[in-house]
Amino acid sequence: MAKTNAGRFFEDYKLGDVIEHAVPRTVSGGERALYHALYPARHALYSSDEFARASGLPTAPIDDLAAFHVVFGKTVPDVSLNAVANLGYAEGRWLLPVYAGDTLRATSEVIGLKQNSNGKTGVVYVRTRGLNQRDEVVMEYVRWVMVRKNNLDAPAPDPVVPELTKVLSVEDLAIPAGLDFTNYDFTLAGEAHRWGDYELGEQIDHVDGVTIEEAEHMIATRLWQNTAKVHFDATFRPDGQRLIYGGHVISMARALSFNGLANAQMIVGLNGGAHANPCFSGLTVKAWSEVLDKRETSAPGVGAIRLRLVATSGGAPFALKGEDGKYLPEVLLDLDYWALMPV
Amino acid sequence: MAKTNAGRFFEDYKLGDVIEHAVPRTVSGGERALYHALYPARHALYSSDEFARASGLPTAPIDDLAAFHVVFGKTVPDVSLNAVANLGYAEGRWLLPVYAGDTLRATSEVIGLKQNSNGKTGVVYVRTRGLNQRDEVVMEYVRWVMVRKNNLDAPAPDPVVPELTKVLSVEDLAIPAGLDFTNYDFTLAGEAHRWGDYELGEQIDHVDGVTIEEAEHMIATRLWQNTAKVHFDATFRPDGQRLIYGGHVISMARALSFNGLANAQMIVGLNGGAHANPCFSGLTVKAWSEVLDKRETSAPGVGAIRLRLVATSGGAPFALKGEDGKYLPEVLLDLDYWALMPV
Amino acid sequence: MAKTNAGRFFEDYKLGDVIEHAVPRTVSGGERALYHALYPARHALYSSDEFARASGLPTAPIDDLAAFHVVFGKTVPDVSLNAVANLGYAEGRWLLPVYAGDTLRATSEVIGLKQNSNGKTGVVYVRTRGLNQRDEVVMEYVRWVMVRKNNLDAPAPDPVVPELTKVLSVEDLAIPAGLDFTNYDFTLAGEAHRWGDYELGEQIDHVDGVTIEEAEHMIATRLWQNTAKVHFDATFRPDGQRLIYGGHVISMARALSFNGLANAQMIVGLNGGAHANPCFSGLTVKAWSEVLDKRETSAPGVGAIRLRLVATSGGAPFALKGEDGKYLPEVLLDLDYWALMPV
Repeated sequence: MAKTNAGRFFEDYKLGDVIEHAVPRTVSGGERALYHALYPARHALYSSDEFARASGLPTAPIDDLAAFHVVFGKTVPDVSLNAVANLGYAEGRWLLPVYAGDTLRATSEVIGLKQNSNGKTGVVYVRTRGLNQRDEVVMEYVRWVMVRKNNLDAPAPDPVVPELTKVLSVEDLAIPAGLDFTNYDFTLAGEAHRWGDYELGEQIDHVDGVTIEEAEHMIATRLWQNTAKVHFDATFRPDGQRLIYGGHVISMARALSFNGLANAQMIVGLNGGAHANPCFSGLTVKAWSEVLDKRETSAPGVGAIRLRLVATSGGAPFALKGEDGKYLPEVLLDLDYWALMPV
Repeated sequence: MAKTNAGRFFEDYKLGDVIEHAVPRTVSGGERALYHALYPARHALYSSDEFARASGLPTAPIDDLAAFHVVFGKTVPDVSLNAVANLGYAEGRWLLPVYAGDTLRATSEVIGLKQNSNGKTGVVYVRTRGLNQRDEVVMEYVRWVMVRKNNLDAPAPDPVVPELTKVLSVEDLAIPAGLDFTNYDFTLAGEAHRWGDYELGEQIDHVDGVTIEEAEHMIATRLWQNTAKVHFDATFRPDGQRLIYGGHVISMARALSFNGLANAQMIVGLNGGAHANPCFSGLTVKAWSEVLDKRETSAPGVGAIRLRLVATSGGAPFALKGEDGKYLPEVLLDLDYWALMPV
Repeated sequence: MAKTNAGRFFEDYKLGDVIEHAVPRTVSGGERALYHALYPARHALYSSDEFARASGLPTAPIDDLAAFHVVFGKTVPDVSLNAVANLGYAEGRWLLPVYAGDTLRATSEVIGLKQNSNGKTGVVYVRTRGLNQRDEVVMEYVRWVMVRKNNLDAPAPDPVVPELTKVLSVEDLAIPAGLDFTNYDFTLAGEAHRWGDYELGEQIDHVDGVTIEEAEHMIATRLWQNTAKVHFDATFRPDGQRLIYGGHVISMARALSFNGLANAQMIVGLNGGAHANPCFSGLTVKAWSEVLDKRETSAPGVGAIRLRLVATSGGAPFALKGEDGKYLPEVLLDLDYWALMPV
């Protein structure tokens, strides 16, 4: 056992530590094709080099969430191997598009620690950064997870809970250099609805559904080199089921949201997110969205829209929480993000 | 619901309309690898850049049927979302090879309309064209589908049924510029049988079978950005089964036909095709072929062969229809196509 | 049936014959991405172009075992279509890295023949070579299989059993030109354990497990253009199960061995291997390793380590054979290979 990675326990994290995560990954057209094969992803900017060029980018980037998954996957062996729960996300920002040929690696800084009162677990806050081969930060986000203690006698650290921005302001968002939607082709993009057509509070039922298969979520999760045992080993859980990587649900819901939000092209900010209930093979994922905010940006023809994206495994659209204030059992995901749209 | 695409109903089509389909797609080595992972595709011209160069092409193209699927997939949101049945294909021509790096988009022209006597549905005929980033037509085909009316009171259009060529003549076929089979390497291609070795009426049992998995047909169908709900959502049909995209069966049967037709390298014409019975996960697809015609071409060393390709889910090879003239229940596909072979 | 490949029977092999296998294959970033999606492969040299360059290679090669599978797959139609059993491997050497853009083909020389005393089968020994587009041998290995006779009256050939090296010496191993681990980044590679940290006889339980899915092993096996019916056709075996390609288990076990052997970067020699028991969908594959030997090499910072890699479907780690000297029923694979590590 000495040579294998047992993962870090709560007492192994020190405030201010910067963890360099292993196994850099070069992405190619192969990752792009697989992403589009595993999710019904159709946003034109990520599907067509020509559409991307007409929007001021050199070529189509790797899907924004694929970049997120690559970065996230690298953190798993160091951050969440002994995690009891993935508690939240904040301050997620996509800073640079990732292109085929780029090599990504990741680092995480421990920005908060708080032992739970039971003395058996604690909450670890990390700010994770994804970097490319030029050491440019391509994305960053804060995640906090509940982690088991291995040595229950280890002293509790001074509790530090970072102050996190609940909602990124539009000024916090990084718009890719050169992005220009003034000549945006709505026909090629798939829908006529522009930024100006969406109203605050508007809700959209994305209608389509995808039934989850074991082979698909495992292929996806491995592609991101996510090593969490529960996603792959049917003998790990007493009920014999594999727990599906939360990011698989995020990508599925985002892809489904094309139908109604085809022009919400680029995700640039992640304000928060909750994996409300676990997802398992056999469930059929559907999605609905709600417009939370709209802001102008300085880029030509580009508006920012803040969206709630909810993934469910059934039930009526737009139902989120019960009278007890808790997520309904069919709600899988409640995500709050900023996207860029043509105005 | 206002923002999502409800699809077009019969009364929404007007004769002469040209529909520009959404979401152009750049293909890469990723799509090529996935095609070869999802189907037992082995035709050497599409597997090896070196073999393609020895045949006069600059590099190996994307498989002919992969190009078809990309084009077809784009038409689904506009043509077949409310289709009751996919009735037929005609006049399919592959006009230019598609290479990694090409970006495909599609248009469909409404060339026929005929309301059914029940007043609830009608038949729509479209000629679909796939175009690359240079606006060159890479392929075209006619498809007709039965589509529901939404407004039953909408007046029936003047019936127009296009005259379609039952069988493309060899002069209608486009042979890729430079294609030359005079130095064809039969050993590398996998079989010794040349064009001259096949006889009119000859039937070939392709022997091999592949059992269909949900994950595989969904990965394939998504890769082509085909959005038809029935392929992905197990809750959509009362029996809980996902209907498999007909093109998945076409590609599976074509790939299986390598064993006996390894040298029928390039599909260049689609005379017609019927999805005789629906295909579902768990069935084992087998295939047989029949030589319908043979023609010389003007390209060096290249002959054209017209083949019937039949996919089945069991039963005896070469059985197609019952005494009632209807397809046997185990017949999934009856396809009529032209391919190019070394003479 | 005349046109399809019935495969070779024992009497069809002649000593000294060189079989040129069909269907050359160009590999790309697509094959690389798929390999990393199908197996939890994380060895940094194959994951990151930057890491590969820092190690003296021009870019990240295709995974060593992926190259093996491509070569192996080509041999199946000629060598093992009528095989009763895959008996063993020897003298496997990876001679040149394979890069995206390379085109691989394969040849096999018949180096041994021995009819079995029952007169119905015989053992065929072949030395298979994989070649790239410059006709350079990228890898070679000896394999022997038991093959059925078709014509039981065919005379038995003079028995020739080749003398095979049981264990390749370190001098037999080909180290890629330029490979240099002197600036090896252990943090990016994922583990701190260097060549010097492993002891002869040391055993490592790789802890993680992956449950096998039909869709995944079929996608993998097709990607290598392996045509053996038993892997794809559920109607082929009386029990309705698909037998999983032994190479799928090899790749799965090797990828799982990252956890404990992250720095055993490159496989360069295959001393031997046995598929101890068949693998089927639903089993959960785990792996353990044992250090069999360690040798210095002439390349800067590079040591060679000889490892036993055992894949199981359960049971206790490090258990291999019963008191009867036979493999335990849960042992799937017993592989003996050389890898290169930073010293």
